[in-house]
Amino acid sequence: MNWTLKCSVCGSRSHDSEQMTCADCGPWGILEVEIALKSPDSGEQGMRRYLPLLPLPDRAVLPPVSVGNTPVCEAPRLASHFGLERLRLKDEGRNPSGSLKDRASWMGAVHAAGRTVACASTGNAASSLAAMCASLGQEAMIFVPERAPAPKLAQLQVFGATVFRVQGSYDDAYALCEKAVAHYGWYPRSAAINPFLVEGKKTCGLEIAELEAADWVAVSVGDGCTIAGIWKGLVEMHELGILSRLPRLLGVQAEGAPAVLEEWKTGGDSGPARPPREAPAQTMADSISVGIPRNWRRAVRAVNESGGKMVSVSDTAIEEAMRLTARLGGVYGEPAAATAVAGLADSEVQGSALAVVSGSGLKDVSGAQKAGGAPLDVPPELGRVIEILGD
Amino acid sequence: MNWTLKCSVCGSRSHDSEQMTCADCGPWGILEVEIALKSPDSGEQGMRRYLPLLPLPDRAVLPPVSVGNTPVCEAPRLASHFGLERLRLKDEGRNPSGSLKDRASWMGAVHAAGRTVACASTGNAASSLAAMCASLGQEAMIFVPERAPAPKLAQLQVFGATVFRVQGSYDDAYALCEKAVAHYGWYPRSAAINPFLVEGKKTCGLEIAELEAADWVAVSVGDGCTIAGIWKGLVEMHELGILSRLPRLLGVQAEGAPAVLEEWKTGGDSGPARPPREAPAQTMADSISVGIPRNWRRAVRAVNESGGKMVSVSDTAIEEAMRLTARLGGVYGEPAAATAVAGLADSEVQGSALAVVSGSGLKDVSGAQKAGGAPLDVPPELGRVIEILGD
Repeated sequence: MNWTLKCSVCGSRSHDSEQMTCADCGPWGILEVEIALKSPDSGEQGMRRYLPLLPLPDRAVLPPVSVGNTPVCEAPRLASHFGLERLRLKDEGRNPSGSLKDRASWMGAVHAAGRTVACASTGNAASSLAAMCASLGQEAMIFVPERAPAPKLAQLQVFGATVFRVQGSYDDAYALCEKAVAHYGWYPRSAAINPFLVEGKKTCGLEIAELEAADWVAVSVGDGCTIAGIWKGLVEMHELGILSRLPRLLGVQAEGAPAVLEEWKTGGDSGPARPPREAPAQTMADSISVGIPRNWRRAVRAVNESGGKMVSVSDTAIEEAMRLTARLGGVYGEPAAATAVAGLADSEVQGSALAVVSGSGLKDVSGAQKAGGAPLDVPPELGRVIEILGD
Repeated sequence: MNWTLKCSVCGSRSHDSEQMTCADCGPWGILEVEIALKSPDSGEQGMRRYLPLLPLPDRAVLPPVSVGNTPVCEAPRLASHFGLERLRLKDEGRNPSGSLKDRASWMGAVHAAGRTVACASTGNAASSLAAMCASLGQEAMIFVPERAPAPKLAQLQVFGATVFRVQGSYDDAYALCEKAVAHYGWYPRSAAINPFLVEGKKTCGLEIAELEAADWVAVSVGDGCTIAGIWKGLVEMHELGILSRLPRLLGVQAEGAPAVLEEWKTGGDSGPARPPREAPAQTMADSISVGIPRNWRRAVRAVNESGGKMVSVSDTAIEEAMRLTARLGGVYGEPAAATAVAGLADSEVQGSALAVVSGSGLKDVSGAQKAGGAPLDVPPELGRVIEILGD
């Protein structure tokens, strides 16, 4: 075993891969993986490139579908818009199920090692889990609330997940999922507390670290896992000497779901294990609409270690950033993805930046409809087109 | 200029990049690009890797977003299902707008060289054109019929295309687009007759040719451009000595839109320029629901040259193939993409195969809903879950 689990609060260590949080600190004692650092496998791409840096079970079986190795493109017009010297976009929407969550679900499915995996979600976590389990031939059990939108259920079911639509709220679905996990001994895919899933997200940071260094890396923040994972990847590659200098992190939350930002403002990344202070969770950016972020502490610590900052942006700014990212950058991101870009308007962000576009715009049709606006209605007559466009 | 245009009917040659069909044969004299073959640029990936093999305008400006270089994964369980020794899936849904059409739109946008580009479509051609134009900072004009689904319009508008919703049918939208193209001198992105766009699709074949050879390559067929382009790419790489042996093509149409298949059955890839015989266009696989395929002749010729065959599959088989491709292969394809996989059931297809999954399942929510079926409705009680799953 090339890894240890270390409590992010009390620092105690364990090797029990089934223990999701610290035995001493309880559910808010979020664990982190410590791993012996080795260079990436230069002959591979995506997750397989980083196997030497990932904590894997013995004789791990890997999904045949390719996760990660997402393209990065220059966005010079978007850079000008924000007064940056350089801006690159990392398009995580190119993952198999359309979001960065595939990196975490890849780890979850591999760690399940043939067991059934379960999660309560209607979002990207569920669809990526369904995809990874399908690729491996494992069973996925998904618990969704009654009001889950039909299009999202369709993707889960095409992938063959067993989908329980629970009469009740998301909390009811979550509670039923937990009971069923306990009863059947399924592997739980709950990104926020499972330290191995954060290691999956780390690979996004490992990939960024293989590029030319940027002054800033912008990441949207919901439960805090993604920014914590990306930071861990950057730090590991810096320690390996592959990344020449560490960027500052720009953690961007939606104004309507600012729990991690509130903790960052008050500097609270030490002290006893505890939940974050209560905050609302009301934003069009579903994927980061989190009221009680489990990984708030690791997120705050990552931002502070990097010398970076956190900001929040309004839903109006998120909608505008969806348009800007697509129109000036050529990348179609979902609202949570555009949130990272919206944060670049902050005046402290100068020089070069890389924004993580965490999921595809195709994942959130209603968000796209809000941002897109209405078409031009015309009769089938050239005259009317000329009236609109001029001659 | 490293290319010539050759009429696929009469064989006459020209160098006029604005002439979309043969001056002698008229609108059914589809042109093909002949190009001096050079090896790919091994230091690049995606479209840029194949610049030496593509007919480009002088001082071409290329989109910053990365198109092509789509992953190929092994699908051993799906291979077993079809009695194949080996099956690989090429996931074209990983392109920026979610379909293989991005390869064609990349070429269209580059050939427009700064001019406004126009097309009449509600499908993948329009969204990929909007994406490529956005990446290049060019204007895109899209004409859609009145009944175009709102989610598809949203993607176009987020990318900043000017969308005219034309009161009338698709034909009305097409006619108005043609008039506006003539009036304004816009560049027309009409894949079916523009020989340069087929060269874009060729890059999918160039990529397949860099893999280990397969006995069969399965491609769904609508207007015939994709299979013709892929075949051209395979042949060029074979001539270059990069592909050791050519595969047989399996051209798969939907039973409800079998125009190219009907021509293939009657052997008609020679004779004077003419439209294909009339055929219906009624299938859930929108992207290949074509009644009058412009490239029927090149498609039939490609299949015949390869020693391959054409088949058709029912919508029921397409739905089933969506599930199989996702559940056994881990790849989420839209109905037209699953059509290629459905064709693998043909008894002549033996040995090793590669199926082109031409677009993401996220592009067609209604198709996914049909294929996915209904979830299990339960109260928030473990007892009910146990009743369903057993203890």
